Amino acid sequence: MAFGFEEKGSKFADSYRIFLTKDGEYVSPFHDIPLFASGSGAGAVGEPLVLNMVVEVGRYTNAKMEISKELKLNPIKQDVKKGKMRFIANVFPNKGYPWNYGAFPQTWEDPKNVDQHTGFQGDNDPLDVCEISDIIPPAGTVIQVKVLGILAMIDEGETDWKVIAINMSDPNISEYSNIQDVERMKPGLLKRTVEWFKYYKVPDGKPVNKFAFNEEFKDQQFAAQIVKHTHESWKALIAKESDNAGISLANATIQLSSEKISQDAAKDTLGQQSALSGSTPLPSTIDTYFYVPNGI
Amino acid sequence: MAFGFEEKGSKFADSYRIFLTKDGEYVSPFHDIPLFASGSGAGAVGEPLVLNMVVEVGRYTNAKMEISKELKLNPIKQDVKKGKMRFIANVFPNKGYPWNYGAFPQTWEDPKNVDQHTGFQGDNDPLDVCEISDIIPPAGTVIQVKVLGILAMIDEGETDWKVIAINMSDPNISEYSNIQDVERMKPGLLKRTVEWFKYYKVPDGKPVNKFAFNEEFKDQQFAAQIVKHTHESWKALIAKESDNAGISLANATIQLSSEKISQDAAKDTLGQQSALSGSTPLPSTIDTYFYVPNGI
Repeated sequence: MAFGFEEKGSKFADSYRIFLTKDGEYVSPFHDIPLFASGSGAGAVGEPLVLNMVVEVGRYTNAKMEISKELKLNPIKQDVKKGKMRFIANVFPNKGYPWNYGAFPQTWEDPKNVDQHTGFQGDNDPLDVCEISDIIPPAGTVIQVKVLGILAMIDEGETDWKVIAINMSDPNISEYSNIQDVERMKPGLLKRTVEWFKYYKVPDGKPVNKFAFNEEFKDQQFAAQIVKHTHESWKALIAKESDNAGISLANATIQLSSEKISQDAAKDTLGQQSALSGSTPLPSTIDTYFYVPNGI
Repeated sequence: MAFGFEEKGSKFADSYRIFLTKDGEYVSPFHDIPLFASGSGAGAVGEPLVLNMVVEVGRYTNAKMEISKELKLNPIKQDVKKGKMRFIANVFPNKGYPWNYGAFPQTWEDPKNVDQHTGFQGDNDPLDVCEISDIIPPAGTVIQVKVLGILAMIDEGETDWKVIAINMSDPNISEYSNIQDVERMKPGLLKRTVEWFKYYKVPDGKPVNKFAFNEEFKDQQFAAQIVKHTHESWKALIAKESDNAGISLANATIQLSSEKISQDAAKDTLGQQSALSGSTPLPSTIDTYFYVPNGI
């Protein structure tokens, strides 16, 4: 299975879109990319869980790029807040995101579902992933990752799980099978991940984020359960057994879906976008450090 | 006084040079840029000490650019170690340097001088500066900075003072008069600065750096004394009262110097360099995080 992407509009402007392709056809990264990577099992106990991940943001960058739930074919676009393109702050001493950030396709944190572990409802997004290897793929890339653990973030009363995973192309991939390997191989990364998530929205006037389980990461097996659960929620979503909560269900490959569209219709969707035309200048504030109240 | 710079060669290659100008004439950043900024006093007690700083490295970048001691007119060039262009590691969670980094002109840490505070000899370089504002000037820029404090680093048996200063153009400049203002305004930055300097050469196989004064920063007044002392050392250097230790003393403006050269000679020096020709691709390892043994 070969993945690719096509950009439209001007980078860092509201017009920018990244449309994904699978074997040369336009697809939705939310619905059409298979969750389970080719040749991998569904994460049976004792086996590594290898999934496809859609990269939305590369490490060290600031633009808040994400799969659009509302737009047809769910292209990746930059989030807009109060009429302004959204760039996340540099939480000192980080520059931009501390890892590659993205989502698992065919997963959904159902806002109608009160999570049994956190007591809070889902955030209505695909399941988020922090991918920790040193390889930085461009936004729109689909990579195969091994699931290592998970953090239960509570963002303003919503459950927002953050899976920790690593690119299967990492040169040290054989060293990683569970969450404790992250601390062994990359000491400080997990602690920093919690600190970063805690504070990264504070510069935008948001409260400090909270975490279930006393801010501790759960292991690979626990993460696999959350992956499975959010995949089931997505199945109900695409089958229209759940309220679609504003999500475009248009897709190119789900045979049983009433929202399946043809490639001609997909091309029409892309045709309505302006052609790729360079970048809009970045705001100067993109370099600013945000210092948390009591230091790191 | 107007400063500028002119680039030669290919960025990130051995041919790259940044030559500095003062009022349109080619000058040496080591010898010809005045240490004391126009209109500022020489740091009398109770007065802010405002100096010219030559920016060698912008925050977040990795290329180890520095004033060349050996080359005529002391252009800024990238350091080469064992035949390879030198890029400093990303000490997790930093990307590149944590601040703008550079040197004070007309200062010198004399290797023949055993520092009375540290007990170690000077490192044969101009005095280093960490400039902490959010404004990131390109390498080669001369900025005016207020001195706030100083850290006594010991690098493999040599004294290597690191001055903490802030750009006079910082929007909050009035909030800064001494080292404790840095902790108040930018909590965690000083602690992180020590950690960063401690580990930044470890990925290159060097030992952990050490610090005098129990890793504590000294205040503005103490820093002013070190500035004054290294300025005196430079005066002896340029007057050839000290061994020149391999340093090119060629300059364009020091009237009493026997090494003063004409602008025609300076132009000849620049003329021998290849014209500016873009950038050499960065190595992929530039993105790699280096994790310190016990985390941050």
